[in-house]
Amino acid sequence: MDIATLRDKHPEHWAKATAIRALAMDAVQAANSGHPGMPMGMADVATVLFSKHLKFDAAAPDWADRDRFILSAGHGSMLLYALLYLTGYKDMTLEEIRNFRQWGARTAGHPEYGHAKGIETTTGPLGQGIANSVGFAIAEESLRARFGKKVVDHHTWVIAGDGCLMEGISHEAIGLAGMQRLSKLIVLWDNNDISIDGKISMSDITDQRERFRAAGWTVLHCDGHDPEDIDRAMTEAKSADGPVMIDCKTHIGFGSPKKQDTAGAHGSPLGADEIKAVKEIYGWPHGAFDIPADILDAWRKTGARGAAERKEWEDRLNGLSATKKAEFERQMGLEAPKKLAATIRALKKQNSELAPKVATRKASEMVLEVVNPAMPETIGGSADLTGSNNTKTGDLGIFNPENRKGRYVHYGIREHGMAAAMNGMVLHGGVRPYGGTFMCFTDYARGAMRLSALMGVPTVYVMTHDSIGLGEDGPTHQPVEHLAICRATPNTWTFRPADLIETAEAWELALTSDKTPSVLTLSRQNLPTVRTKHTAKNLTAQGAYILRESEARRRAILMATGSEVEIALAAREILEGKGIGTRVVSVPCMELFAAQDEAYRKKVLPAGPVRVAVEAAVRQPWDRFLMGERGSEKKAGFVGMEGFGASAPAETLYKEFGITAEAVADKVQALL
Amino acid sequence: MDIATLRDKHPEHWAKATAIRALAMDAVQAANSGHPGMPMGMADVATVLFSKHLKFDAAAPDWADRDRFILSAGHGSMLLYALLYLTGYKDMTLEEIRNFRQWGARTAGHPEYGHAKGIETTTGPLGQGIANSVGFAIAEESLRARFGKKVVDHHTWVIAGDGCLMEGISHEAIGLAGMQRLSKLIVLWDNNDISIDGKISMSDITDQRERFRAAGWTVLHCDGHDPEDIDRAMTEAKSADGPVMIDCKTHIGFGSPKKQDTAGAHGSPLGADEIKAVKEIYGWPHGAFDIPADILDAWRKTGARGAAERKEWEDRLNGLSATKKAEFERQMGLEAPKKLAATIRALKKQNSELAPKVATRKASEMVLEVVNPAMPETIGGSADLTGSNNTKTGDLGIFNPENRKGRYVHYGIREHGMAAAMNGMVLHGGVRPYGGTFMCFTDYARGAMRLSALMGVPTVYVMTHDSIGLGEDGPTHQPVEHLAICRATPNTWTFRPADLIETAEAWELALTSDKTPSVLTLSRQNLPTVRTKHTAKNLTAQGAYILRESEARRRAILMATGSEVEIALAAREILEGKGIGTRVVSVPCMELFAAQDEAYRKKVLPAGPVRVAVEAAVRQPWDRFLMGERGSEKKAGFVGMEGFGASAPAETLYKEFGITAEAVADKVQALL
Repeated sequence: MDIATLRDKHPEHWAKATAIRALAMDAVQAANSGHPGMPMGMADVATVLFSKHLKFDAAAPDWADRDRFILSAGHGSMLLYALLYLTGYKDMTLEEIRNFRQWGARTAGHPEYGHAKGIETTTGPLGQGIANSVGFAIAEESLRARFGKKVVDHHTWVIAGDGCLMEGISHEAIGLAGMQRLSKLIVLWDNNDISIDGKISMSDITDQRERFRAAGWTVLHCDGHDPEDIDRAMTEAKSADGPVMIDCKTHIGFGSPKKQDTAGAHGSPLGADEIKAVKEIYGWPHGAFDIPADILDAWRKTGARGAAERKEWEDRLNGLSATKKAEFERQMGLEAPKKLAATIRALKKQNSELAPKVATRKASEMVLEVVNPAMPETIGGSADLTGSNNTKTGDLGIFNPENRKGRYVHYGIREHGMAAAMNGMVLHGGVRPYGGTFMCFTDYARGAMRLSALMGVPTVYVMTHDSIGLGEDGPTHQPVEHLAICRATPNTWTFRPADLIETAEAWELALTSDKTPSVLTLSRQNLPTVRTKHTAKNLTAQGAYILRESEARRRAILMATGSEVEIALAAREILEGKGIGTRVVSVPCMELFAAQDEAYRKKVLPAGPVRVAVEAAVRQPWDRFLMGERGSEKKAGFVGMEGFGASAPAETLYKEFGITAEAVADKVQALL
Repeated sequence: MDIATLRDKHPEHWAKATAIRALAMDAVQAANSGHPGMPMGMADVATVLFSKHLKFDAAAPDWADRDRFILSAGHGSMLLYALLYLTGYKDMTLEEIRNFRQWGARTAGHPEYGHAKGIETTTGPLGQGIANSVGFAIAEESLRARFGKKVVDHHTWVIAGDGCLMEGISHEAIGLAGMQRLSKLIVLWDNNDISIDGKISMSDITDQRERFRAAGWTVLHCDGHDPEDIDRAMTEAKSADGPVMIDCKTHIGFGSPKKQDTAGAHGSPLGADEIKAVKEIYGWPHGAFDIPADILDAWRKTGARGAAERKEWEDRLNGLSATKKAEFERQMGLEAPKKLAATIRALKKQNSELAPKVATRKASEMVLEVVNPAMPETIGGSADLTGSNNTKTGDLGIFNPENRKGRYVHYGIREHGMAAAMNGMVLHGGVRPYGGTFMCFTDYARGAMRLSALMGVPTVYVMTHDSIGLGEDGPTHQPVEHLAICRATPNTWTFRPADLIETAEAWELALTSDKTPSVLTLSRQNLPTVRTKHTAKNLTAQGAYILRESEARRRAILMATGSEVEIALAAREILEGKGIGTRVVSVPCMELFAAQDEAYRKKVLPAGPVRVAVEAAVRQPWDRFLMGERGSEKKAGFVGMEGFGASAPAETLYKEFGITAEAVADKVQALL
C-alpha cells in the first residue's frame, strides 16, 4: 500500500505509525548513528501488533502472562524504544529517546535487557532473538501445562529480518520450533530485500516461505504497509496449529525519496535534508521529537488497552490456592526452593562417606537425580548427547507436543539454538533450563553463551568431555582453549569440579545464581572422591580452597581443577615422600576465587612456596594465580597443554602430553 | 535393497562394499571405541562413488584436478580410512587401520587433515565438512575461470549426515552454495533417520528435500543400498545446473541383527558376538582385518582407475605456457609471489613519510589495494559488512554465477559459513581467501576458526571494529574477551596493528603463512601513524618491539596494541615530562613475540622497570608479559576492560572506562 492510500484510508493508524517513524529518524539523526530504515519499514506492522494483537499493559510491564515481543532485528532498536515511549512505559521517557546511543541512556544502540522494561531480551547479534523466542514459547507451554491456561496463555511475537534468517542459528531455531509445534510463536519477517551489502539476491536466493514450511511452520503473507492485511494475517496466525511465519513485504526506509529500498537506509542517519523531505511526504509538519498530543494520547490508550485483561488475570491468579500461587511466583522469580540447600547437603554428606569413583558427568547426573524432584521448574536437555552428557534423570518426561509436562528437551544437533533457547526460557521466567553438549562445542554456542553473560541471566551449561581425557575422539573433540575462553568472558562462572562433592556444590551455585550463567565442565573419565571429609559449607563458593595441607614444612603449593586434582594429590604424595611439604589447592571456579577478599586469597595462596598449576588445558588463565597473588615467575610452573590434543586412549594422552604426577613433582623440584 | 538381493544381483559390488563394512566393524572393535554404524550404512554409496564416479588416482593423491571427497559426517572416519586403504593410498596401510584411534596412528577418531593423503579436511565437529565443500567448489570455479577447463574441471563430493544438516552452519553453507549455483558440488545425504539420542523425529521433522530446494538446489533421491540406483542418481547429479543433494535412503548399521536402524549402531563397537552375527549375514567368513586378495585386487583396480585420465591431465598441464604452468603451480602450492615483499615494503616506505591518520580497517584496505593486483589468487569477501570491513578493493570483480573471474564474495550474513568456506578454499589450493566481519562475531565463526588452527591452514580473518572504540553500537558489538579467545587458541596469529605500517606487516605475514591462520583485528576509529621511521624489516614478525625508547632514565615500560598504542605514546609524554623515562613497546602479535628467542625478549622487556599494559580488552593474556618475562606483580599494571562495554561515542567510552593516557601515567606513578 502506498503512502497516499494509507493516509487516506487509515488516518489514525497512519498517524500512530508515522510517530514511530519520526522518532526513529530524529533519534538516529541526533545520535548521528543508528538504523532508521528498519523502524520506518516495520512501523505499520508494529502499530497493528501493538494496537490490536499484543497482550500487554504498559503500566504493568512485569505482568507474567503478557505476550512477549522480541525484536530479533535488534539494530532496529528505535522501533522498540519508540513503541515503549509512545505506549507509556514509565522508564522510557522522551528524554531517553533524545539520548539514544549516549552514555548512561536506556536507549543503547541495540536493545539491552535490563535497561528498560519491555526489552525482553538483548538483541543485535543476528538470529539470537528468533532463537530466544523458541525458549520463550517452550517456557510458556511448560508453565501452561503445569499451572493451567487460566494463568498462563500468551504468545511470543518476533520481528526478524533477512539477517536473522540468513544466520545459521535461525535454522536451528526454526527446526526446533517446528518439531515442537509451538503454536504460540509467531514470527514477523521484515521482508525488505535489503541487507547491508545491497540487494539480498547478491548473497541469497532462498525461498524463505518454502524453507519455513519445510521445517513444519505455517506460512502466511501480508502487505506490510496495509493495516487490514496485517491484521488479517495476525488474526489467522493466532489460530494456527504450530509456529507461524508471516512474510511481511515491506519497504526499508519507507517514504524516503532517496533511500527507500536501498542499503543506504539501513545503518546511517538519513540526513537533515532527507528527513525534511520524508516528513513532507508523510505530511508530518512537527519538529524533531515532537509528537502531537492527540497522537500520543491515541498511543497511550493503546498502552492501557490490556489493563482490564491484566486485572482479570490477577483475579484468576489470586483464585489459585495460596500454595500454588506462591509456587507460581517463586518459579517466575527464578527463586530456588528452600529445600535445595538441604538436598545438596544431604547428598554431599552421604557421598563424602561413600566416596564413589565416578566421572563428574555421572556425578552431575547423581546431583540432578535429587535436584530435579526438588525443583519442578528445571528443564533439562542436550544437543543430541543425552547419554554422554548425563543430563536426563528418571523423573523427567520428554517435553514434546504430546507431553507439555515433560521436562527434558531433545534439542537435536543444535548447540547454538539450544543455548539461545535456554536464554529465552530464563528470560521468560518460570523455568530453570540446563543443557548439555561437549565442552569443545561451546565453540558452536559462543554467540548465545556470551549473551547469557552480557544479559546477566543464569543459564546453566553442562559441558562434558572437558579435556583430552575424553580420549579417542581426538583433537576435534578435545577442548584445550575453552576453559580460557569461558574464563575470559565477563560475568561467567566456569566450574571445573574435581569430584561429586564439588559437582554438587557447583550445581547449587548454578541453580541459585540470579545474574550469572554457569558453565559446568565435567569429565568423561572416572575420578575419585577427593573431599571425603564432609563440610556443610559450600567450599566451591570460595572458588578455591585448601584441599590437602602439607605435612612437612610447606615449600610448594599445587593448584588444580577437575580431573587434574587427582594428579596434584598424587604429586603431593611423591613430594611429601621426599620431605617437600606440599599443599594442594582445588580451584573449582577461578572467578569466585578472584571475588574473595584479600585475606582469604592470601590464606590460600601465601607468598613464598613454589606454585605449580595442573590443568589439561592452556596456561593463559593461570598466570594470574601463578605469578600474581603474591607469586613470582621464578617460583611458578604449569603442567598442561601447549597445543591441540590427539586421538588415543586417555591414559596414553596424559602420559604423552606429560600431565602426570611425576611431571608435576619434577616441576616443583626443578623450581625449588 | 535387502542384503540377499544385493549379494545376488551385484556380487562384485557387494564384496567391495562388505570389505569396507568389515574393516569398520573390526577397527572399531579393536579400538574399543568409534562409530561403525555410518560406514556400514554408507558403504554402498561410497563403493559406487569410488568405483564409478570419483575422479582420483590413489597413486597420485596430490593431483590438482582430482575430485575432492569430503566426509562431513567425520565420525564415520573408518569409511574413509577403509576406502583409502582398499584403493591403495600408500600411507594408509592395514597397520594404520589396525591402529585405529591409537597414539601416533594416521587413523584418528575423526579424520585429521595432514594425517594421511586423501583426507581433504578435518571433520568431526558437525557441519564443517559440508561448509568446507562450498569453499572447495568456489575455489574450483575460480581456478577454472582463470586457468581453463583443460586443467581445472572436477567435482566436490560430500557425505553429510543428519547431524550435519541439523547444525546451523549447514544452513549458511547451502544458502551460499545455492545462490552461487555451484554445479560441481554434490552432497550425498546419509538419510538414516537416526541420531545419537534416537529417532530423528524426536528432535526434527524438517523435510530436507524441500529445504534444499528452497535454497536453490537440485534434489535427487536413491536407495542407498542399490548400486544401480545410486549410480543413476550420481550420473544425473553431474549434469545438473547448480548444486545437487542426493537423498540416499540408508540403514545405519546395515545388516546388524540387533543394531541396524538404532542409535546403538552409531557410536560404540558392535561387540564380538554381534560382529560374528553380522558377518554370517553378510556371508563374510574372513577374520578380523582379513580382506581376501581378489577383493583387495578389485579395489586396487578402482584405485588405479583414474591413472590414465591423470596422465592426460598432466599432458594438458604441460601444454600450458611455462609461465602459466609455473603460476598454476605456485598458486596451488599457496606460495606467495616474489613481488609481495617489495610491494609491502614500498607501501610502508611511502606511508612512513606520509604518516596518514586512518583507521586500521582503512589501512587494511590500502594494503589490499596494492596486494590484490600483485596476488591474483586472493579472494576477498565479507559477511555482509563490506563497507565496514573495507575488504573490497577496486580491481576485484564480484564472484557470482555470471562472473567466475570475480574475486570478491558477498558471503551474506553467514560468519560461520564464510569461515568454513575459506578453510575449504585454502585446503583446495589455488586461492588465498580472506574474509571480514566484526571482531565480536568471531563468536559466530569460532567452530571454523578453531579448525583453521587445528588443520594448520592459513585462512585470513579480517576482524574490524575491534573494541569499545566502535562506539554507539554498544556491548553486543564490542569485543572485550575476543583477543583473549584468539590468543588462547593454539596455532593462531592474532594481529592487532597500531597503524598502517603494522597493518601492512601483518598482512605480509598472513599472506606468506603456510601453516597458521591469522586474525587481523582492526579499528573502526582513525589512528595516527606511529611508525614514521621506515625500516625494510618486518618488525611485526617479532611480535613486539621497542617503538619509542625512553629519554630520561628508563623506569617504566608501556606495552600496548592497536588503538591503544596511541594512548601509550601519550602517556609516555606525560611521564617523560615528569622525568620518568618510559619505553613504549608495541605488541602487534603476542604469539610471534613469545616465539622469539630469550635474548630478544629480554631486550624488549628487561627486568627492573615498572610495566603497564594498555589494551581495551580483558587482562587475561597480558599476565604472562606483565608478571612473567622477568616482570613482577608489584611492578605490573593493566589499563583495559574488566567487563562488557556500553553504548556511547567512542571517546566517551574510553574516558568512562578509564582507558586514557592520564590513567596509564597514573598507574605507572602509583607503581613506582
